[in-house]
Amino acid sequence: MRTQVGIIGAGPAGLLLSHLLHLRGIESVVLERRSREYVERRVRAGVLEQGTVDTLVEAGVGERMQREGLPHHGIELRYGGAGHRIAFERLVPGRCITVYGQQEVVKDLIAARLAAGGDVRFEVNDVAVHDAATDRPYLTFTEADGTEGRLDCDVIAGCDGFHGVSRPSIPEGVLTEYRRDYPFAWLGILAKVKPSSEELIYARTERGFALHSMRSPEISRFYLQVAPDEDLAAWPDERIWAELRARLETVPGFTLATGDIVERGITPMRGFVAEPMQYGRLFLAGDAAHIVPPTGAKGLNLAVADVRVLTEALARLFADGSTEALDGYSRACLPRVWRAQHFSWWMTTLLHTFESDDAYARRLQTSYLDYVTSSEAAGTTLAENYVGLPYQEETS
Amino acid sequence: MRTQVGIIGAGPAGLLLSHLLHLRGIESVVLERRSREYVERRVRAGVLEQGTVDTLVEAGVGERMQREGLPHHGIELRYGGAGHRIAFERLVPGRCITVYGQQEVVKDLIAARLAAGGDVRFEVNDVAVHDAATDRPYLTFTEADGTEGRLDCDVIAGCDGFHGVSRPSIPEGVLTEYRRDYPFAWLGILAKVKPSSEELIYARTERGFALHSMRSPEISRFYLQVAPDEDLAAWPDERIWAELRARLETVPGFTLATGDIVERGITPMRGFVAEPMQYGRLFLAGDAAHIVPPTGAKGLNLAVADVRVLTEALARLFADGSTEALDGYSRACLPRVWRAQHFSWWMTTLLHTFESDDAYARRLQTSYLDYVTSSEAAGTTLAENYVGLPYQEETS
Repeated sequence: MRTQVGIIGAGPAGLLLSHLLHLRGIESVVLERRSREYVERRVRAGVLEQGTVDTLVEAGVGERMQREGLPHHGIELRYGGAGHRIAFERLVPGRCITVYGQQEVVKDLIAARLAAGGDVRFEVNDVAVHDAATDRPYLTFTEADGTEGRLDCDVIAGCDGFHGVSRPSIPEGVLTEYRRDYPFAWLGILAKVKPSSEELIYARTERGFALHSMRSPEISRFYLQVAPDEDLAAWPDERIWAELRARLETVPGFTLATGDIVERGITPMRGFVAEPMQYGRLFLAGDAAHIVPPTGAKGLNLAVADVRVLTEALARLFADGSTEALDGYSRACLPRVWRAQHFSWWMTTLLHTFESDDAYARRLQTSYLDYVTSSEAAGTTLAENYVGLPYQEETS
Repeated sequence: MRTQVGIIGAGPAGLLLSHLLHLRGIESVVLERRSREYVERRVRAGVLEQGTVDTLVEAGVGERMQREGLPHHGIELRYGGAGHRIAFERLVPGRCITVYGQQEVVKDLIAARLAAGGDVRFEVNDVAVHDAATDRPYLTFTEADGTEGRLDCDVIAGCDGFHGVSRPSIPEGVLTEYRRDYPFAWLGILAKVKPSSEELIYARTERGFALHSMRSPEISRFYLQVAPDEDLAAWPDERIWAELRARLETVPGFTLATGDIVERGITPMRGFVAEPMQYGRLFLAGDAAHIVPPTGAKGLNLAVADVRVLTEALARLFADGSTEALDGYSRACLPRVWRAQHFSWWMTTLLHTFESDDAYARRLQTSYLDYVTSSEAAGTTLAENYVGLPYQEETS
């Protein structure tokens, strides 16, 4: 079997890449380890930057998102007994975020690929990368029915996430890895209950951070800062709601509505970057190359930015054989990757409780929050990163 | 001997307070441990915020500063082989900083106090605070000629710096002290040489931080990040210049001019705040209450801000006996104090090398510098803090 681009992973990065390549007349095959049902239900990110929304709309896969997604024009920072709104409409006019679950983006992209006759294979096991250092790389794999397969390609795109096979298939010594582990995790839940506030609430309390978010007008999403080795079994529903109340019901008049918890999980908080995002004809995109703590809602959006750059570079390759853009892929992506790493670190340290912090550090944190919520310039730094800075290719 | 306000310390805080009180018709006596010659030559800060300049001009002691001071409309952040200007005239129109040595401010204030018949006593020893918790506090001291003195006052102002007697005279348990020690110090020199650049240069290098500053068109000021326990004797002139060159000659076309070193010293880098800034009728102002690492050039300016608030509160006390403003002194000062603590921490961590930083942290620092030097909003956060945020009394 032969294709132009072999794509490992049917998450947002792999599917969007396959779709954008299709729009440029470039063939691809997507190999995914999980079932279609699984990836279409996997609850992950849900905050789309303006640029991500624009990308999906321009690519013709934004119709349902535009209908069902919730545009948000601000977020609330809640601390010290008061809420402070970061008003996007004033600070970054014309730009906002859209709340629309990652699994909905995945559903829309799968539907579009299949409708166009795209080749997306689920439940594919034992994917292995071969000869990535040559111009004739190929993938081997085992299909759901046990058939052994081989996919010859011009280029391989590793879009299989942090734990995928792509990055580990690169020989030792090629990549430099940068890592930051945070001394806490997030306990996240999805609950069948109308959101208690129209906008996201980022709450900093002495008990730890909490986030009030939503996926739809009927489904709320919440996160609690917990210990990094926290045991989910130690958190029965009553404890989760009690802790969310203690961290969110800190301003007059706010009452947290509760409901059935339909999903729950614990997410480690870490930053990670592998450089370069390329080895020969293997290109890493999204979580396969870098992950961020979820505080800044940057993970999915960064994957979309990578895929945009990779699509342009591949279009050049298949148009005239030029590898110049491809060779510049990593260099083109990394400034945005590090900006997102930094912003995610910034939001995380601004809002979480660090056990190692002394009284001086806690005062600094409060002073910083006071500044961000009172200075137009400081508020704008939060807002412009949150809604997403312009893509580099558009500003250069 | 009796006065209305007994002031300990003839630094900028104590002298300005005495002068501003005089303009309101309030009497004070200033007691200073050092000689007049010493305080008039003591090299310290040299960057005045717009508000500090305005305060001195309005108080009639800005004439020489306006003539000899150097207005600066930007600073340079130098790193990664390039210089990046933070342009105040664009980011914070109408506001700038003025380079004018602290000892020059002190000279001007001493001259003004003495010309107005003010009572400023130098070489006064053994100053002790008594009965601060009552309405009849007093100071005892030994004059230069050995005479024992007693100064009865309505209020005592402790303007005697971080190592002065005022703060330690407050009973244990009254103050909460917040402290941050940085794992490095600054080696500072004053040299007889024309500055090599018209504006200040904040340089971040792998070898550590360096600052190129100036005091006049003929006198340059330089700082080098060194180990916290660095021995000045280990730094002969040649080593100082070689290290300054290595850290500053990092952009094409820049050559460091060298000259005779006329002053040198090592400054520890720390942040400190004591709360509240009051005990009974004893009020702390400036370094007696709080110190910052010098990176943000905030120490002297913060002292001026404290003194402005204290002057207003004392004017109320002596006008109608109301202690309401005095009782609110600490509360009124502390937000600006913590803003300066935070900004100074921010500038320090943005520009210094921390041995504890891993590769990830160094990349974050570079990304942050790239952001501050490319985003209008982020550049404005630096600029507005550097030239000085508006005084609270003017914005509320």
